[in-house]
Amino acid sequence: MVNRAGVRSFYRSFQDRFSEMLGGVDPSASVTDDPWDRAGGGGGLTRVFSNGDHIEKAAVNFSDVEGATPPALSEGLAHGSDRFAATGISIIVHPTNPFAPTFHANLRFFEVTPGTPWFGGGTDLTPHYLFVDDAVAFHRTLRDVCANHQVADYAAWKKTCDEYFYLPHRREARGVGGIFFDHLVHDLDAVFAFQKQLGAGFLGVYQTILGRRIGLPYDESHRSWQAIRRGRYAEFNLAIDRGTRFGLETGGRTESILASLPPLAAWAYDYEPPPESPEHELVKVLRAGPRDWL
Amino acid sequence: MVNRAGVRSFYRSFQDRFSEMLGGVDPSASVTDDPWDRAGGGGGLTRVFSNGDHIEKAAVNFSDVEGATPPALSEGLAHGSDRFAATGISIIVHPTNPFAPTFHANLRFFEVTPGTPWFGGGTDLTPHYLFVDDAVAFHRTLRDVCANHQVADYAAWKKTCDEYFYLPHRREARGVGGIFFDHLVHDLDAVFAFQKQLGAGFLGVYQTILGRRIGLPYDESHRSWQAIRRGRYAEFNLAIDRGTRFGLETGGRTESILASLPPLAAWAYDYEPPPESPEHELVKVLRAGPRDWL
Repeated sequence: MVNRAGVRSFYRSFQDRFSEMLGGVDPSASVTDDPWDRAGGGGGLTRVFSNGDHIEKAAVNFSDVEGATPPALSEGLAHGSDRFAATGISIIVHPTNPFAPTFHANLRFFEVTPGTPWFGGGTDLTPHYLFVDDAVAFHRTLRDVCANHQVADYAAWKKTCDEYFYLPHRREARGVGGIFFDHLVHDLDAVFAFQKQLGAGFLGVYQTILGRRIGLPYDESHRSWQAIRRGRYAEFNLAIDRGTRFGLETGGRTESILASLPPLAAWAYDYEPPPESPEHELVKVLRAGPRDWL
Repeated sequence: MVNRAGVRSFYRSFQDRFSEMLGGVDPSASVTDDPWDRAGGGGGLTRVFSNGDHIEKAAVNFSDVEGATPPALSEGLAHGSDRFAATGISIIVHPTNPFAPTFHANLRFFEVTPGTPWFGGGTDLTPHYLFVDDAVAFHRTLRDVCANHQVADYAAWKKTCDEYFYLPHRREARGVGGIFFDHLVHDLDAVFAFQKQLGAGFLGVYQTILGRRIGLPYDESHRSWQAIRRGRYAEFNLAIDRGTRFGLETGGRTESILASLPPLAAWAYDYEPPPESPEHELVKVLRAGPRDWL
């Protein structure tokens, strides 16, 4: 039977596994471990990679918090769920090479007392240059993991992801999507087993994608475009993402929440890449609406 | 008697006057004029300075829009104010030199039908390095302009500005403040006269401040710190600023609204400047709570 101690222990050890993968890809990145306590109960371990040859910035964050249910969380819960506990792992990777995509994943488990516990999570990929192979490999992995678990629904969760990671003011998708799920309350043992395989799946496929891209030659023009696309990423996380807003507004740990922000971002007025350029190929896809990558 | 045609005409000509000041300070900056129409009625002229030796990016934007009152605006208005018109000028300057402060100002006039028209506006200064002389000169100008106009209240509006330009998740002020006022519905002729003198005042004092700072030598370490502080500016504008949110959520023109974002911004995990450094002197002041500069 799923319990928080078991889930927490998996998330904490997965933090190390994902970190080992990044360290293998780029032994030159500095790694900072920052353990923290939450005033209202619990704490976490924020782990940040920075200034590597290949990993410009990454955050692999574990948290396990509990206490009085914050008002922003209690909306939508059964009346009287006045205690909560949440454990999770949140990962973001900003590679140095503009041809390597930004990666995001999150796995989480919530309990409310009184109330029913649930799992949530997801993962998505944000390239600065489109490599169809990478998008296909990523989605194929997610589809295959989902196909192994009756509790999972790739098609529905891909749609939720496409809808969520969207910038309405830009009429652009954030990236090539992935899956996103929340409030899974049934068959928690099966969901936990799914989450474990999902973690192994996205770790493996992102490692493969990094291996394909981090050696490609690039110049300052590619870095400039990467900075502009990272500006979009910052727009999404700061202006739109519910997780970020929820965290900041409920007094979450600012540096851990905003560790997702890119190392460097640029905003150029009304910049449009030249027609037929590789940069234009990306935005064409992001503006075309959801795509079936498989 | 104040009417929109007169206010609009002043804002539009003030756009040119402020632009001439910037062009005088930095003739090397590219200037792009981008006239636009609003689907629901009206339009504007977005003017962007970029890649100058001294003006890295600036936006001096005029707008004059009208139409059906957007739901986000009609909250708080008399029931049935179903038409609105708004004209305004919005200015942001990101100088290249890290010792020159970022500048922001906004003047605006709203009409609702049926209903009472009002003026709003404000200006504030955001240094990356603290020069007390600059903050004092800026606030002295604002206080002196306000002292000449019975409709103005420097003390109250400085307080509103300090409260508004605050990042709760950082426990930091955005900068050294200025004044902020809204919903001025009485003595509109007098408020208009005040706005005119305010525009002349902030144009003059910012020109003086730029003149003092843009020639100071700097190196990459100062630029890095400027980029980190500009990250805070992006956080404020994207996550907190009501004007930006209102604009984006009501289908405003994205490129004009986000022209305020810095040319380049950086996020480094939990970066704290060394004690006693000039960088630390700035954050000490921003975290100390509102200060009387006069």
